[in-house]
Amino acid sequence: MTAFPKKVSIREEGPREGFQIEPTFIPTARKIEFIDLLGQTGLKHIQIVSFVSPTRVPNMADAEQVAAGITPRAGVAYTGLSLNEKGLRRALACKNLTVTGDIALCASEAFLKRNQNRTLEQQTAAQRTDVAQYNSLKVPVERAVVMAAFGCNFEGDVPTARVVSLVETATDIAAEQGVRLKKVSLADTMAWATPDRIKQAVGAVQDRFPDLSIALHLHNTRGMGIANAYAGLEMGVTEFDACVGGLGGCPFAGHKGAAGNVCTEDLAFMCEEMGIETGLDIEKLIACARLAEEIVGHPLPGALLSSGPLSALRDGTRPYIMASPSAY
Amino acid sequence: MTAFPKKVSIREEGPREGFQIEPTFIPTARKIEFIDLLGQTGLKHIQIVSFVSPTRVPNMADAEQVAAGITPRAGVAYTGLSLNEKGLRRALACKNLTVTGDIALCASEAFLKRNQNRTLEQQTAAQRTDVAQYNSLKVPVERAVVMAAFGCNFEGDVPTARVVSLVETATDIAAEQGVRLKKVSLADTMAWATPDRIKQAVGAVQDRFPDLSIALHLHNTRGMGIANAYAGLEMGVTEFDACVGGLGGCPFAGHKGAAGNVCTEDLAFMCEEMGIETGLDIEKLIACARLAEEIVGHPLPGALLSSGPLSALRDGTRPYIMASPSAY
Repeated sequence: MTAFPKKVSIREEGPREGFQIEPTFIPTARKIEFIDLLGQTGLKHIQIVSFVSPTRVPNMADAEQVAAGITPRAGVAYTGLSLNEKGLRRALACKNLTVTGDIALCASEAFLKRNQNRTLEQQTAAQRTDVAQYNSLKVPVERAVVMAAFGCNFEGDVPTARVVSLVETATDIAAEQGVRLKKVSLADTMAWATPDRIKQAVGAVQDRFPDLSIALHLHNTRGMGIANAYAGLEMGVTEFDACVGGLGGCPFAGHKGAAGNVCTEDLAFMCEEMGIETGLDIEKLIACARLAEEIVGHPLPGALLSSGPLSALRDGTRPYIMASPSAY
Repeated sequence: MTAFPKKVSIREEGPREGFQIEPTFIPTARKIEFIDLLGQTGLKHIQIVSFVSPTRVPNMADAEQVAAGITPRAGVAYTGLSLNEKGLRRALACKNLTVTGDIALCASEAFLKRNQNRTLEQQTAAQRTDVAQYNSLKVPVERAVVMAAFGCNFEGDVPTARVVSLVETATDIAAEQGVRLKKVSLADTMAWATPDRIKQAVGAVQDRFPDLSIALHLHNTRGMGIANAYAGLEMGVTEFDACVGGLGGCPFAGHKGAAGNVCTEDLAFMCEEMGIETGLDIEKLIACARLAEEIVGHPLPGALLSSGPLSALRDGTRPYIMASPSAY
């Protein structure tokens, strides 16, 4: 059998990636309530806001108020996503946030133009400037991120060699500035990955950079999220981004419960069932997903939200509504 | 890398397992329309009805009319599930059906009692009688089925040794009657499996019965369906049951899009993306899933229903509504 990791770390992105895509503005107090409930689940890292233009992402307009309003729990890192200097300075001004810098590259120029209005060359140049700035502001830089690492809705398939080359670029940028990267996050931004592609890309990056640990940022838009995470586990990946309830779905298909990010509690369930420690309380994560459903006002696609975990069946309490089993 | 099978066979169960759980009676003509559309997708085996008590499963009350009304496509086997002699005789009276016999055992007595009102012993005895009857009616018996092979909501975890022992019982029953089984289907009836359990059970059955091919009947109730199928592919499994749109969800949680059987088009998508031939037209399967949604009158949980496959993005036509991508 494959040697799975003994322990994995799941980073919650529901308040940021989940809420930013919602078409209706979510009141600040509700965001805070949600983040504070997430803080009680065992999560060690919650990305709670992004510091981006409120005209482009209206739901993040109150990022400062959200960050100021939470009751931080000891041992939990609360972070905010920033994509430029302005965002970084906003993040640094928030007392409750842990601020780190990423070297963020993208495997698709077409996506980069839509997302950040930059060419690949401009993005690379901007990362050089950013790292210099992180250094001058004493912001630790430990991680490279490769967006659209498996494919792009606007540009098509991404060859694994391109991913490896982008990680090389990131480590080069880091080295130029005296920074040593510890981690690379491969993001399946537009849900093109299948398990074999995960294994290929993770394997190729591991072969070329044996000292870098690999994180996966997975979307479930095409239903592959959990299978892709499993493929990552088989390759020894120990860190995953996820959103409770599978928040992050397409707003234009919201009524269908279109799947968004890989679902935190479903992923944690798989890991725990396989004996891989997550440190997470699955029932508490489900309670967070329920709250998220109530807040966003539409059903979320997470499976455990409806089915519940197995623990409640093993101990005989069965609090979840079960279908009458019918053959077979 | 793992050696995946070159080709897999997906058996559609939407009209039977999908519709039988729906609380509203589906008009016969709509069932026929759906089955005939499924016949155009490349599927080679469609389970269209079950011959069971109409008081227990009202949506199957018109099984004979459905079977009589379809326009069978050459090369496609249309089958009906039967659980006893009465059901078998009803199936044999339908001209459009391919009738085969299963030796069906169950890893959970608690489930068996609810599902068929039998003890394990009674079920084993009944299988002996059934095989004798199949032989006398010249109905081929090629397959053993182990229901609840991974766990039971009413009885808990199922040890792998019990699964192997049930397959032994089935091959013994077959041998007593001069029948040689070719296949065993392991059914995760109540969605207890995770990928590691799939590998353990499939591996143990393969080790003990190297000549039996293994099929998986997977449910996605806890979000593990596709990951479990992937684990099956890694073990060389070449046959899967599935339902378009992920039909088969819990009726009590239907409004939430609670996941039912593993979704045919999502599974076919994964296989095709990994270079494993399915013989299926994914766009046509999605059309069937859309029709199923219209027929059952509520959203279905299949991912490709909302996202579409990648082919349409690779060729630049992009007919599916895509979310505005937002970082990352």
